[in-house]
Amino acid sequence: MAKKILIDCDPGIDDALALALAHGSPEVDIVGVTTVAGNVGLEHTTDNALRLRDFYGMEAPVARGAARPLVRESLTAADVHGNTGLGGVVLPEPKSKPSDRHAVDFIIDALAAAPGEISLTAVGPLTNIALALHKEPRITEWAKEFVIMGGSYTRGNTNPAAEFNILADPEGAAVAFNAPWRTVMIGLDLTYQARATAAVRSRFTSLGRLDTELITPGLDFYGQHISYRDEGPAIHDACAVAYVIDPGLFQTRSARVDVETQGRFTSGMTVTDFNATPDLHNVDVATTLDAERFWTLLTDAFRNVADNLPD
Amino acid sequence: MAKKILIDCDPGIDDALALALAHGSPEVDIVGVTTVAGNVGLEHTTDNALRLRDFYGMEAPVARGAARPLVRESLTAADVHGNTGLGGVVLPEPKSKPSDRHAVDFIIDALAAAPGEISLTAVGPLTNIALALHKEPRITEWAKEFVIMGGSYTRGNTNPAAEFNILADPEGAAVAFNAPWRTVMIGLDLTYQARATAAVRSRFTSLGRLDTELITPGLDFYGQHISYRDEGPAIHDACAVAYVIDPGLFQTRSARVDVETQGRFTSGMTVTDFNATPDLHNVDVATTLDAERFWTLLTDAFRNVADNLPD
Amino acid sequence: MAKKILIDCDPGIDDALALALAHGSPEVDIVGVTTVAGNVGLEHTTDNALRLRDFYGMEAPVARGAARPLVRESLTAADVHGNTGLGGVVLPEPKSKPSDRHAVDFIIDALAAAPGEISLTAVGPLTNIALALHKEPRITEWAKEFVIMGGSYTRGNTNPAAEFNILADPEGAAVAFNAPWRTVMIGLDLTYQARATAAVRSRFTSLGRLDTELITPGLDFYGQHISYRDEGPAIHDACAVAYVIDPGLFQTRSARVDVETQGRFTSGMTVTDFNATPDLHNVDVATTLDAERFWTLLTDAFRNVADNLPD
Amino acid sequence: MAKKILIDCDPGIDDALALALAHGSPEVDIVGVTTVAGNVGLEHTTDNALRLRDFYGMEAPVARGAARPLVRESLTAADVHGNTGLGGVVLPEPKSKPSDRHAVDFIIDALAAAPGEISLTAVGPLTNIALALHKEPRITEWAKEFVIMGGSYTRGNTNPAAEFNILADPEGAAVAFNAPWRTVMIGLDLTYQARATAAVRSRFTSLGRLDTELITPGLDFYGQHISYRDEGPAIHDACAVAYVIDPGLFQTRSARVDVETQGRFTSGMTVTDFNATPDLHNVDVATTLDAERFWTLLTDAFRNVADNLPD
Repeated sequence: MAKKILIDCDPGIDDALALALAHGSPEVDIVGVTTVAGNVGLEHTTDNALRLRDFYGMEAPVARGAARPLVRESLTAADVHGNTGLGGVVLPEPKSKPSDRHAVDFIIDALAAAPGEISLTAVGPLTNIALALHKEPRITEWAKEFVIMGGSYTRGNTNPAAEFNILADPEGAAVAFNAPWRTVMIGLDLTYQARATAAVRSRFTSLGRLDTELITPGLDFYGQHISYRDEGPAIHDACAVAYVIDPGLFQTRSARVDVETQGRFTSGMTVTDFNATPDLHNVDVATTLDAERFWTLLTDAFRNVADNLPD
Repeated sequence: MAKKILIDCDPGIDDALALALAHGSPEVDIVGVTTVAGNVGLEHTTDNALRLRDFYGMEAPVARGAARPLVRESLTAADVHGNTGLGGVVLPEPKSKPSDRHAVDFIIDALAAAPGEISLTAVGPLTNIALALHKEPRITEWAKEFVIMGGSYTRGNTNPAAEFNILADPEGAAVAFNAPWRTVMIGLDLTYQARATAAVRSRFTSLGRLDTELITPGLDFYGQHISYRDEGPAIHDACAVAYVIDPGLFQTRSARVDVETQGRFTSGMTVTDFNATPDLHNVDVATTLDAERFWTLLTDAFRNVADNLPD
Repeated sequence: MAKKILIDCDPGIDDALALALAHGSPEVDIVGVTTVAGNVGLEHTTDNALRLRDFYGMEAPVARGAARPLVRESLTAADVHGNTGLGGVVLPEPKSKPSDRHAVDFIIDALAAAPGEISLTAVGPLTNIALALHKEPRITEWAKEFVIMGGSYTRGNTNPAAEFNILADPEGAAVAFNAPWRTVMIGLDLTYQARATAAVRSRFTSLGRLDTELITPGLDFYGQHISYRDEGPAIHDACAVAYVIDPGLFQTRSARVDVETQGRFTSGMTVTDFNATPDLHNVDVATTLDAERFWTLLTDAFRNVADNLPD
Repeated sequence: MAKKILIDCDPGIDDALALALAHGSPEVDIVGVTTVAGNVGLEHTTDNALRLRDFYGMEAPVARGAARPLVRESLTAADVHGNTGLGGVVLPEPKSKPSDRHAVDFIIDALAAAPGEISLTAVGPLTNIALALHKEPRITEWAKEFVIMGGSYTRGNTNPAAEFNILADPEGAAVAFNAPWRTVMIGLDLTYQARATAAVRSRFTSLGRLDTELITPGLDFYGQHISYRDEGPAIHDACAVAYVIDPGLFQTRSARVDVETQGRFTSGMTVTDFNATPDLHNVDVATTLDAERFWTLLTDAFRNVADNLPD
């Protein structure tokens, strides 16, 4: 039986690839996609999720979530993802509409309906997750696991201390990390091992419209960013979905992770203490990726998506 | 036509008196009571709201809200309000139950159903308000006004810098104060003008069971607190309800109010700048109470409640 | 025998009056004047101290101190004191020079030479004091008392939370307040009781050149500041000197005072807890001034200065 | 002509080795050793500096400095260096005494006397340096360079974010890093490349009393610390001295480094931005050590010391 995954995201180029990975993987069944402000504003991330849903032929509903971080002013990453969030990708206007339910209620209801079954996977700022935890604390018991793309145990990307998803909502992240559930952190130290090099990208050239209309214009734009020039862009968000599909691709270490919310230069940093006493550990931190198997997983899933694109 | 009031509270002794004031005032119609963790935990504040509803004979529904502050650990004031929140007051087990809806949804739905009509009045920590603002930002347009008991522009009560309701959830308060609506802050500088002195309390002795079962055991307990010994306890929360009933009892000054969330000794302080340029003003700060008229208003309302207590 | 006073200052208009008070009071003997950056930069505060020394005919040496706060960027108050620090006062170029010794060494040496005898009186930012404490911690034993003008237990002046002298160097102030000596805090709550009203100023009109060349042009400039328009300017710094001369003019309360160094809106606030347990008390906080006797003290001292001005 | 070096330190085991390296290197001439509280308290670091001076036969004076961090409470590392600071090393009572001058004055006077000639090398908390900068800002012009052992651009050692020397006095470090001079940061990323492995230590076995009385008991104790068990202890402080002797052993990158002083979990972190615009760069950050040449340098110097130990 396929694992169930609920994807909270802010598409975003790598979010688009993460959705393709989940959609094309027979091992997982997407129960829903919830959106949050992040790489771009909420209207764009929701619109992008709907366009991707139409383009891929996904059936899972899309539910719109939080438009702003829990406490701070908004922060976006339009320099990395373009003004509309999908870089050079141009998809048709969405035919479908978002769910009537707010993302927070969608998350709570989905987890309540299938306790112990759903991998809650968040690849954007953690605002929706924090709000859901406030409205229904029992989701910590109902989620099978909580997997995020976010953070770092060495250096950040948006600034020297912080990774974008955590920096965009440090207080939301603090709420999520402090909740009593098993969090798996797929941070930059891991995702920088998933670089879409020229060799990797050559695997996608046979994927037809999926490549020409999405992967290539997406990665061409994304890969221009200064941090990616040398080694190719890191496909951050897809790593979190890959973890849900096959955790065997990852090595993890248990640690205490605290989110800094008070620093002048360090807010949004995921302060990761591998030497904390085990009773304080709250996160499994991914450290090592089997990149070869990761790319095979991704290529196979993309093939499935490519072969079944709606007209 | 009576004004509509929605009361978000954490009963709490002075919350109990605020509810009595609203219930006994023909000028206002209570559309609902929402509860939040604060003076005591959420289970107690909700239970107390239901007991008070039964005792007073209120019809408005009670909806349960947030059990924890937006970001921080919980803080209660059991030293002031007793372990169950009502000091020496012992009321029967509640006959009624809370609403099926969460307080956040109750607030949003009520305001959406009567845009421009409801005074949203919060006399506990502002967690529910912050969550409602996140889920439905349009409540700032729908609320007629947003009146809080909380904060101070000189000194705090729980510590030298902060008043309890704001200190209990500084980040929630920051969200509420930064939202684009008209906030009226009834802080300590105002509420310390509403002291239940012996002379004031003598007015309540003819109120029968309302006095003997609620007012007297409540104020006797409350008044023991060190900060009240000299001049009698301040009936904080009732001042916010009184403002909704008759703002003419209050003088206010417009100001910029920011909630400190980063201080070591000052988190939860409402930093109030009366000299800010008017475009930055976000709050009408109550400065002066017509105490004589306030007590008359309260006594009249309590008389109405006392005369109509259910058996 | 006259009490010995060492005045650390940043002249500054009210500093000028504080020096006049000390110089004209037979009860105190000025052992030295040390300068620090504050109201204006160090070059100006030192230059002003020398000009005032010449004008008044003081014999005590002037020693130059710290040009910058202990950790932060510089903050000045040129809007209150004018670009050169003495408002409309124009005094001749100084004939004398500052001491060869740095203010920090001057303070240490003076206190070491007369242990238990000198009231160390600081009426500017506390940078020199902090540096002296670092270089020679025993000054806490050698000082007779440590009297400052600075802070507040209600509201600030430069911003809603902080008084200028503390805001200008919060970390320096924290070091001084945390040192193990008896600190007397003459803050805004006290100094706002020393307003140079028209009635007060009429006492100075017979003081000849002291009035026409210093008091009147100083107070005219100073009194223009928005915070003083209604009631006349507060002669802050002179209050600290007055305390040394005659503490009987003041009522004080013992308290725990912590300086906020971490707040976003509250850095530099002197968080004053009168309810702290006595073992935590570190400051005697002045609360009430006998203003009538204060002005008499000041007028008498000014008369002495006026009668003995050098040609 | 030998380069001049002034060493500000907190001995400490690796400080002892750094002093040996400097003393035994003909390329440098030690103009003085100043002490600061750090690994252990000031009395111990000063006493240890004197004992090491006697043991090695150094002529340079030892001057005692700051006993406490600039703003915070003291932090020591007795778990790493033992209660007296030299682990298992037992040296005789010092025969010599510290200089009459305070370290701050010693530093200022030395730099003033030889402008452009002295490498100011700090391998403990930066309190003395900050105090010297406050007393005499011109030392930034007089120092040839400012080389420190401290900080990290990835992870800390005392906690996940901060290296000990910076964590022990974040405000002092902020003052030093913000001063307008050329700072060279030899941080953990560099010093972890200087591990005293068994192979390295075998080079020291022929050094007689230097080995048996100092190196071996020092490293045996030091190497027990959890962070060193796998690869042998890192000889942190000696790397900074090695940089002064031969910067060719090091690769550096220019960066903007800010010291976090406000974080809850990150105070004392050296936030290192290699992508800052060059006009903001304030530090040359050492990234790569030629470990083989480093150990040769160290071994040769130790040989010189060993051959010239006083009786």
